[in-house]
Amino acid sequence: MNEIFELHKKGKISVENKINIDNSQTLAKVYTPGVAQVVKHINQNKESVKEYTIIGNTVGMFTDGTAVLGLGNMGPEAAMPVMEGKAMIYKSFADINAYPLLLNTTDVDRIVDAITVLSPSFSLIHLEDISAPNCFEIFDKLVNKVNIPVFHDDQFGTAIIVLAGLINAMKISNRKPETSSVVINGAGAAGLAIARLLYAYGFKQITLCDSKGIIHRNRTDLNRYKLEVLELTKNQDNAGNLADAVVGKDIFVGVSVGGALKPSMIETMNDEPIIFALANPDPEILPSDLPSTFNGIIATGRSDFPNQINNAIGYPGFVKAILENNIKNIELKHFIQAAKGIASVLSESELKKDYIIPDVFNKNVVPSILASFKK
Amino acid sequence: MNEIFELHKKGKISVENKINIDNSQTLAKVYTPGVAQVVKHINQNKESVKEYTIIGNTVGMFTDGTAVLGLGNMGPEAAMPVMEGKAMIYKSFADINAYPLLLNTTDVDRIVDAITVLSPSFSLIHLEDISAPNCFEIFDKLVNKVNIPVFHDDQFGTAIIVLAGLINAMKISNRKPETSSVVINGAGAAGLAIARLLYAYGFKQITLCDSKGIIHRNRTDLNRYKLEVLELTKNQDNAGNLADAVVGKDIFVGVSVGGALKPSMIETMNDEPIIFALANPDPEILPSDLPSTFNGIIATGRSDFPNQINNAIGYPGFVKAILENNIKNIELKHFIQAAKGIASVLSESELKKDYIIPDVFNKNVVPSILASFKK
Repeated sequence: MNEIFELHKKGKISVENKINIDNSQTLAKVYTPGVAQVVKHINQNKESVKEYTIIGNTVGMFTDGTAVLGLGNMGPEAAMPVMEGKAMIYKSFADINAYPLLLNTTDVDRIVDAITVLSPSFSLIHLEDISAPNCFEIFDKLVNKVNIPVFHDDQFGTAIIVLAGLINAMKISNRKPETSSVVINGAGAAGLAIARLLYAYGFKQITLCDSKGIIHRNRTDLNRYKLEVLELTKNQDNAGNLADAVVGKDIFVGVSVGGALKPSMIETMNDEPIIFALANPDPEILPSDLPSTFNGIIATGRSDFPNQINNAIGYPGFVKAILENNIKNIELKHFIQAAKGIASVLSESELKKDYIIPDVFNKNVVPSILASFKK
Repeated sequence: MNEIFELHKKGKISVENKINIDNSQTLAKVYTPGVAQVVKHINQNKESVKEYTIIGNTVGMFTDGTAVLGLGNMGPEAAMPVMEGKAMIYKSFADINAYPLLLNTTDVDRIVDAITVLSPSFSLIHLEDISAPNCFEIFDKLVNKVNIPVFHDDQFGTAIIVLAGLINAMKISNRKPETSSVVINGAGAAGLAIARLLYAYGFKQITLCDSKGIIHRNRTDLNRYKLEVLELTKNQDNAGNLADAVVGKDIFVGVSVGGALKPSMIETMNDEPIIFALANPDPEILPSDLPSTFNGIIATGRSDFPNQINNAIGYPGFVKAILENNIKNIELKHFIQAAKGIASVLSESELKKDYIIPDVFNKNVVPSILASFKK
């Protein structure tokens, strides 16, 4: 068996006791009869459940397995190794308990009701690897039903890191968001969230593309989530394909499919373009395939190239900030705070075209996000 | 703050990583890109999810908080310290991961659907602290909907230990089940399960009482669960109160309320009676209140008296046996196997009137239950 399977045997996480129960005195405190004191206290002071149980520092992670990595609909069981990996990252980087839960249905209302019924068990709901547009509908319904924050990492977890990377890339190329133009290729969970977040941050020239080309007002095949973002970005009139979209633009953000961005397209962009080719494992363009004249910045989702745009940099610290600040409704401003916190880990003197984002193991990321929430 | 609250701060369990992720080589194996190999493997071999994730050794524990300890309906949040305590016992005594989940509804169908939707996350569903008769309906519906075993500790977890204790108490008093008469006081989750299990084991003379007295065929206030057990035990004709019920009987099992069994009632029972006074924290009769002529055996649910009948002795090993033997449908014979396994931990020479059941910390209990499943 190879080492990867060996490491996965019987799972990568476990539920452990914080106190040893090897004698009856301790057992009588953590279980009956002693535990009854704590039960009665919480019954009278419901909020104290966060103080005296695991709940205050615990995230429930839910997936139906319909959009696992770049592999598509693999089913809930096959999603579990990814869920455990994300739980490990929560623990290792932010000391948060995350418990992975699999949903054996793709029915939106059953998923929403199951998570709602379970919601007292957690301080935050983390949705993961649920395909669009179901993920939007589940999110919108859940937010109205549960009393705790809801976070879909594939949407805004990705958007946070993209914005963090762009903030630093724009410092290097001396750009301002108001005067920079962006093409986002891919209008699923990540693409639509990136569009919303960049708009909220100050980017006003945003062109959104999907597999059929530019999203514009005369298309009749758009779901309501794409229409909402189209309305928001007000870029409603231009038709065309991706090659048309990128002409004269400053920034390309790809969350689509490998090879979608051709070298010839990059040559039509503005000088010193910023290319975020985030399709995984095969980016929209490989760094080795860039035009020889390329003088801009490229980032991918891969660890074997510089500038890795990796959700793992963002969600542990972001969720820790939400929990520590007792935020019930997550707003766009919170994602912006997190992105600024991540970007500011690198000082201006450290920034280079191949070093725009801190490494996933950088110990300053989580404290910097937490600090940005205090401002 | 007292020590009990101190021990409960931020919870008594945590989700921990089995592998350290402090370098990119390891991260690339337990998360992307390496994890994709395991995802694809499970997608093609669904059963292997038990081999390569936490699921194979994990129990989902669910409560709505309607019957917490002897305290009644405390709500789901207040049930959490007990749930964590039970999870600790799973871990410490049987090395099983148990994750506690709270249900914010008492609606049977919503509970059943939520647990069904979540069921791929676990190898066994453990229901806990759900009041009767809802617990019966939830159990019956769940068993037909999920592909994994369902266990309600307040029913058969208790029944296993009662039977284990009775097996040994009867050895001491030289009784056989077929010729011994039993009164069970309390016809909730525990009482009805005890009646079913004792009947299956060979006790045929069983009288069941609830707060209104003997359960008999002319009563019009019986729910269908009590009626089913009445039908089973065929003891349908005698009316009367608890005092009437115990006259000339061998065994009393109380899962009712403190003080229900008077010393004068015990004096009407057969010689060397067996009294299991399991109401907690106040038993049906305190050992110190027994008649001066008492020459039988008494057991309680309390750790400060001999012969503690404690679920914690049974459920960890029982559930481990179910998981290890890959049993999908739990049957009465499995509870009997577990009870025999527990009883046989004490050799005949060790047995005494005040030592009929192994201590909760006895390391031989779990192996003995596992061995009894191999027979």
